[in-house]
Amino acid sequence: MFEKDIFIHHVYFWLKNPLSIEDRDSLVEGLKKLSSVTTIKNFHIGTPATTSREVIDNSYAISWLLLFNNKDDQDSYQIDPVHLKFVEDCKHLWNKVVVYDTIGI
Amino acid sequence: MFEKDIFIHHVYFWLKNPLSIEDRDSLVEGLKKLSSVTTIKNFHIGTPATTSREVIDNSYAISWLLLFNNKDDQDSYQIDPVHLKFVEDCKHLWNKVVVYDTIGI
Repeated sequence: MFEKDIFIHHVYFWLKNPLSIEDRDSLVEGLKKLSSVTTIKNFHIGTPATTSREVIDNSYAISWLLLFNNKDDQDSYQIDPVHLKFVEDCKHLWNKVVVYDTIGI
Repeated sequence: MFEKDIFIHHVYFWLKNPLSIEDRDSLVEGLKKLSSVTTIKNFHIGTPATTSREVIDNSYAISWLLLFNNKDDQDSYQIDPVHLKFVEDCKHLWNKVVVYDTIGI
């Protein structure tokens, strides 16, 4: 079980050029650099699994799952210079981003 | 860092009666029972955080994040009797479910 106060920040990216492996790899490289932000407790960079059912959205290119110890750490990440540089360097790669922020119930 | 082969199954539920705390609690209780499926490595039950930006979708009621050691364990979970009973018992509570299945890159 995850810790009680954990803050889950799950981002899904859709690429501007969805067939470009080069663009996908550039985004992954950018996320790897981004993972150095010190308030990040744990992270996962992924792609859609091969599962397929009506309810499954596998149209995204990259999943970026972040765990923070609490909301303050997530707030700090949003304004971290490493994060701002990532957005600046990589925003030309995507045309859609959906974020789900979740706290425990 | 998560283990290399980890399989991430993230489900977002929208309730049929989004203002019903009773329905939300029933779904949470159902998920707690569902968490007993033995192939589940780790799980988190949550609600939207208080963050608010254009890219954030906070319209869902419940987030159900599951970690499996691998795809086989996730496949097994899908047909586990405990999972089938959860769907049978709780499906009247939601009107929309979106699932993102992710593997590492």
